[in-house]
Amino acid sequence: MNANRKTVRRDPGYAGLTRTVPTLPTAWYFDPAQFQLELQRIWQRNWLYVCRSSEIATARSYRGYQIGEQRILLVRGDDGTARAFHNTCRHRGAALCRDDAGRFPAAGIVCPYHSWRYNLQGDLVQASSKLAGDDFEPRDYPLYQLPVTEWHGFLFVALTQRPPPFAASFDLPANRLDDWRMADLVVAHTLRKTMQCNWKVFWENYNECLHCPTVHPKLVNLVPLFGRAYLERQDDPSWQDHASDPDPRFGGGLRRDAQSWTLDGQPAGVPFPGLSEADRKAGHIYLTSVPSVFLVAHLDYVRVLRVRPLGPEETEMSIEFLVLPQTLSEGRDLGNAIRFTDTVMSEDAEICELNQRGLHAAPHQAGVLMPEEYAVASFQNWVRTQLADG
Amino acid sequence: MNANRKTVRRDPGYAGLTRTVPTLPTAWYFDPAQFQLELQRIWQRNWLYVCRSSEIATARSYRGYQIGEQRILLVRGDDGTARAFHNTCRHRGAALCRDDAGRFPAAGIVCPYHSWRYNLQGDLVQASSKLAGDDFEPRDYPLYQLPVTEWHGFLFVALTQRPPPFAASFDLPANRLDDWRMADLVVAHTLRKTMQCNWKVFWENYNECLHCPTVHPKLVNLVPLFGRAYLERQDDPSWQDHASDPDPRFGGGLRRDAQSWTLDGQPAGVPFPGLSEADRKAGHIYLTSVPSVFLVAHLDYVRVLRVRPLGPEETEMSIEFLVLPQTLSEGRDLGNAIRFTDTVMSEDAEICELNQRGLHAAPHQAGVLMPEEYAVASFQNWVRTQLADG
Amino acid sequence: MNANRKTVRRDPGYAGLTRTVPTLPTAWYFDPAQFQLELQRIWQRNWLYVCRSSEIATARSYRGYQIGEQRILLVRGDDGTARAFHNTCRHRGAALCRDDAGRFPAAGIVCPYHSWRYNLQGDLVQASSKLAGDDFEPRDYPLYQLPVTEWHGFLFVALTQRPPPFAASFDLPANRLDDWRMADLVVAHTLRKTMQCNWKVFWENYNECLHCPTVHPKLVNLVPLFGRAYLERQDDPSWQDHASDPDPRFGGGLRRDAQSWTLDGQPAGVPFPGLSEADRKAGHIYLTSVPSVFLVAHLDYVRVLRVRPLGPEETEMSIEFLVLPQTLSEGRDLGNAIRFTDTVMSEDAEICELNQRGLHAAPHQAGVLMPEEYAVASFQNWVRTQLADG
Repeated sequence: MNANRKTVRRDPGYAGLTRTVPTLPTAWYFDPAQFQLELQRIWQRNWLYVCRSSEIATARSYRGYQIGEQRILLVRGDDGTARAFHNTCRHRGAALCRDDAGRFPAAGIVCPYHSWRYNLQGDLVQASSKLAGDDFEPRDYPLYQLPVTEWHGFLFVALTQRPPPFAASFDLPANRLDDWRMADLVVAHTLRKTMQCNWKVFWENYNECLHCPTVHPKLVNLVPLFGRAYLERQDDPSWQDHASDPDPRFGGGLRRDAQSWTLDGQPAGVPFPGLSEADRKAGHIYLTSVPSVFLVAHLDYVRVLRVRPLGPEETEMSIEFLVLPQTLSEGRDLGNAIRFTDTVMSEDAEICELNQRGLHAAPHQAGVLMPEEYAVASFQNWVRTQLADG
Repeated sequence: MNANRKTVRRDPGYAGLTRTVPTLPTAWYFDPAQFQLELQRIWQRNWLYVCRSSEIATARSYRGYQIGEQRILLVRGDDGTARAFHNTCRHRGAALCRDDAGRFPAAGIVCPYHSWRYNLQGDLVQASSKLAGDDFEPRDYPLYQLPVTEWHGFLFVALTQRPPPFAASFDLPANRLDDWRMADLVVAHTLRKTMQCNWKVFWENYNECLHCPTVHPKLVNLVPLFGRAYLERQDDPSWQDHASDPDPRFGGGLRRDAQSWTLDGQPAGVPFPGLSEADRKAGHIYLTSVPSVFLVAHLDYVRVLRVRPLGPEETEMSIEFLVLPQTLSEGRDLGNAIRFTDTVMSEDAEICELNQRGLHAAPHQAGVLMPEEYAVASFQNWVRTQLADG
Repeated sequence: MNANRKTVRRDPGYAGLTRTVPTLPTAWYFDPAQFQLELQRIWQRNWLYVCRSSEIATARSYRGYQIGEQRILLVRGDDGTARAFHNTCRHRGAALCRDDAGRFPAAGIVCPYHSWRYNLQGDLVQASSKLAGDDFEPRDYPLYQLPVTEWHGFLFVALTQRPPPFAASFDLPANRLDDWRMADLVVAHTLRKTMQCNWKVFWENYNECLHCPTVHPKLVNLVPLFGRAYLERQDDPSWQDHASDPDPRFGGGLRRDAQSWTLDGQPAGVPFPGLSEADRKAGHIYLTSVPSVFLVAHLDYVRVLRVRPLGPEETEMSIEFLVLPQTLSEGRDLGNAIRFTDTVMSEDAEICELNQRGLHAAPHQAGVLMPEEYAVASFQNWVRTQLADG
């Protein structure tokens, strides 16, 4: 390091930080009161990815979702519109469905307790009482509705009546992956892991590749730039030395003989037809919507990673593999893609848990971000801003 | 409903509410601080049913009971009197017995830690020190005694020195079931369930039959009035239209060919000999002592349902079947009674858990009571009154 | 007791209390806030026994230890010195090792997350960034170091930079057991138990023998004075009546035909060669370092009991049996020693749990100490003093 210290040259366009930056206070990663605050000010104020549209494909089919203590119900209307409601009857607060997924009867949403009946727009159609109180007006008792956005076959919900603009939730233009025609893709496989760590630990891990050489041997073999601990070429302070070098060690992308994120680098699914040459070569394109999901588009599949906090030190990740319908109809074996992802995500999960374990040390009030962690710094600033907005 | 709206006629004597009434605040059903408050102001101030007298039939036999963190010991004295004490030695606070039930030795209540010895009245008879401190007076260290009432073979305890009058804890005159001579009955069977719901959710469920048509198909088949969602005939706003109609759909009681709450409607145990004709025909008579127990007296058995909160969202119910000794000595098969009860109570337990699950919705500050839920309103007012009494 | 009351004679030198003394408030044994306070003011301010030196015998070998949420790492340096650090990387707070015990590579302590590298003195040798921020100084990021004392083959750590003098943590001169040459002893066996009780309940149990006749039948058979409920001869108010009586019922020590704490009273291990005649005869010599450990030296083995609070009502005890290397090389069977200890400690664990169970009784604000519990009183005063020192 002292040797490096002499070289303070940083090329123009360098992406990294030039000074140390303190991390968030460590108590924010385990304090239960802080967790509640983050549920309120972050998770209940932003768009959250729930599931693919196909999970509620037909009218009246529904699907549950839980964040903190809030249980939500997404249901497809007869008009084809997906709507979200708190899974709570206006009468005495019973949950409106027993199962995590299913289909309501033709009568509508009927509470299993006293048979209050709502239509799929959430209006109360029938209370069970023979003669209601004189002041009772059914229109006063619709289900508690929440905003829903359906986007390229993804269903997002917001637990607030005033969510931010949907497109603003992405880090890139929301049309960046349009060529993948994601609305037409199907879910080929799902992985789910519960990690013993705070949700922010997961996102910070996602936002830097400084850990890649230590943690991900298979991944850095596939993506040589990651092996240099960089996410992007301009993370290298001397990136201009190799600005025109086609070697993926400098330019990014997959190693020469690889085309996708699979164990052998070969595509496992049918390649998407409409991709640009640049996108085909990139090997992976990330599109992120904090706090709940990121997509990674490859040549032959799209990975969807949904994040869900379960407690101050517990987080769930669910991974869906989206492919062309032909990939399934042709009986393609996706094992190499699934196992590769499982390996990398298991490595991340394990190291996130190790990160969490060290955070309780009494003298450790905060850590320090290194230049390559500029995106972690951005994430942490986003968190600070969200929390400051009382 | 709009159709009903036109008919605002309510017969004189109508039991239901005429206007909507808000429920208790939903946070009262899961907030841990509220739960502690209810333990203190409700459960530690009222008479609580513990067990049948027969469980401590002989002198020195004891039985434990726990409510919140309070562990109580009921023990039968040599004088035949049942007494209750905190299960705590005055020396260093050890529990006085290891097991939930058993019998103390002839020496009395001997602490298993340092052998402090108490008589069955709770007086300290022997401290273990060879030579106590100069200021030590055994009379200063009796067990912490609590009021006990023994009533028709039921043992109640109060965790306060100033409990309300015992008879006042019942919703009907305490002698209402005297003809069943319950002191002479024996326990034929016990069922126990743990429900993931607040204790008040259980009591509210108990206090209305608006849920019966949806939740209890076998029960409404047996009790036709319940099938109309009514507990009592005067719950129907037009009850006078059928005031003299002998049909149990209007008058209450069991369906014509049934005599008791069993799968086939036939009595399973030996019928009680001293019942009035009206009581024989009623099919069921309820007697309730909030917050801990209700009795239902049938032709051939008495059902005793004890309620015990285990946590803000966890409640235990224990059900005892009381019968004539002949029912056991004659080897009568009680299966039809037990299975019927098990079915109905399992339905209630499941729907109570569903009710609990929906209560956390952030916008749901309170529910609304319908006219048929007048007894729920009474219960909730009782809760409010108890809590207001600081 | 009334009979005893007449005899108020207490011999000069009597060890017991002469008046009743109240115990600590009972809430201190289960209140979570009190538990946190005790972690901070007692467990994080005193010397704590972690493990035998032999567990980190070679350079770079390490061993973890956790107290409350604080995870500590003990590691042997190349210079042979044992050092302790919070198990936390200065970068982003990851735990520095995955396992509870192991050996670091020749490179030193390398964080598994981003490969920050520290030497065994805790200095940061290498941060992983290619070009650190301009203000980054590696010397600003050493591991969080904690004081360690290595004493006769025992490793102690303190979670404060200003621990009390090490020798002051013992109740006897720290050289009291020098004749056992404990640095040369080896661990022959380890027992571990988790008790559902507060850590102070355990220490109070340790500090009196008033419970011995009730709880420990085998032990009082081996140590007759314990059978009289005394720890020391001068606990008897009339001890001078038998001041010169060689009977162990009065003088202490083992029963005539026994030499060690084993099932049959016979030594199980090779007797220690350098003991004085008095120490050989004593049968057991206790040396205590509150709050974390006590040693009991016998003729043929030394018992080491480590205490560790896991929660307000949960405590771990770990027992190591130290013997001469010959005991192992000669293949001696230690079963009689291990089983004897296991019996006595299981009795203590069970009675501690029973003590805990009774402490929640609402009216029981405090217990009362009897004369024989003078050492419990001392312990409780020590606790009060530690807590008062804000």
